[in-house]
Amino acid sequence: MKTLNQSDKKYLLDLIRDVKDFPKPGIIFKDITTLLSNAKAYNFLIDHLAQRYNNLDIDFIAGIEARGFIFGAALASKIGKSFVPIRKPGKLPYTTISEKYSFEYGIDEVEMHIDAFKCKKDRPKVLLIDDLIATGGTATAAVNLINKVGAECIEACFVLNLTFLQGDKEIKKTTNVYSVLEID
Amino acid sequence: MKTLNQSDKKYLLDLIRDVKDFPKPGIIFKDITTLLSNAKAYNFLIDHLAQRYNNLDIDFIAGIEARGFIFGAALASKIGKSFVPIRKPGKLPYTTISEKYSFEYGIDEVEMHIDAFKCKKDRPKVLLIDDLIATGGTATAAVNLINKVGAECIEACFVLNLTFLQGDKEIKKTTNVYSVLEID
Repeated sequence: MKTLNQSDKKYLLDLIRDVKDFPKPGIIFKDITTLLSNAKAYNFLIDHLAQRYNNLDIDFIAGIEARGFIFGAALASKIGKSFVPIRKPGKLPYTTISEKYSFEYGIDEVEMHIDAFKCKKDRPKVLLIDDLIATGGTATAAVNLINKVGAECIEACFVLNLTFLQGDKEIKKTTNVYSVLEID
Repeated sequence: MKTLNQSDKKYLLDLIRDVKDFPKPGIIFKDITTLLSNAKAYNFLIDHLAQRYNNLDIDFIAGIEARGFIFGAALASKIGKSFVPIRKPGKLPYTTISEKYSFEYGIDEVEMHIDAFKCKKDRPKVLLIDDLIATGGTATAAVNLINKVGAECIEACFVLNLTFLQGDKEIKKTTNVYSVLEID
């Protein structure tokens, strides 16, 4: 399946802004809003994802709150799929299942509606999307949720992978991982 | 500009689930996740928004966290525009401006990056998108933020308008309002 060449990766990476000391002193935050607000770059990125996933057997695209909604929903509408939000606790109105995980700043939790992947198939195929993978806690919890309700997470896709944190190691035990961009 | 006919509106409205007593006893919450997870309906809705906004002079599409990200980012990628997130306090990493507002359950605040609409134009045109308008506090605050940084909010677009709460009255003083669906 399609991946970006080095020059296209550099084009996108150069549009991601480093913000020092956010959310805590000593952290350099990767700010993707500067990429999103560039129409050409944003659409180039979504078109790349569309090329990669257009011909795959995917029943649902799930995105993790909140920045995962941006890329997940955009890709879903681009390739004619549906969109399922995986959210922070207390945000989804109907009956949910949840999964706790530890991350670089503490412990958190993600929730999903129990009927999120309701369809005619016994085991619907789900593509999971988030903007960034750091230590991988959120995404691993999200993959677990998808599998728990009887669906199959066929791939976890990230715009940016902070590879030095090796967050994809744990996820790779249960699903494929694809990242558009990497920071070593 | 295009609006939906009654039969199309009914098709979409029938896919929105009522959840009783969320987030508080006595409230009937309009759950759009059941519409989003229907690929045909979700894409019909985004295509309708694309038809409406495709030929307009729009420089940026801004969405309000978190459900506004879903529709805003999907529309932006569909018509080749950029996307700007308007977020809850403390979420945006760079320098922000913020605006407080009161809503049906208390007082809240929205934030935007000060350079969110950086471009060659003196007064870039912005389309604002959120999933639902109730009392209109969030959206009015978001329109104020857009205008404060020197951009022009040309329209505030909502998937669902709870018209009995008359939330669009205040916003209409400063910008156009369009809602795809209404609940009287």
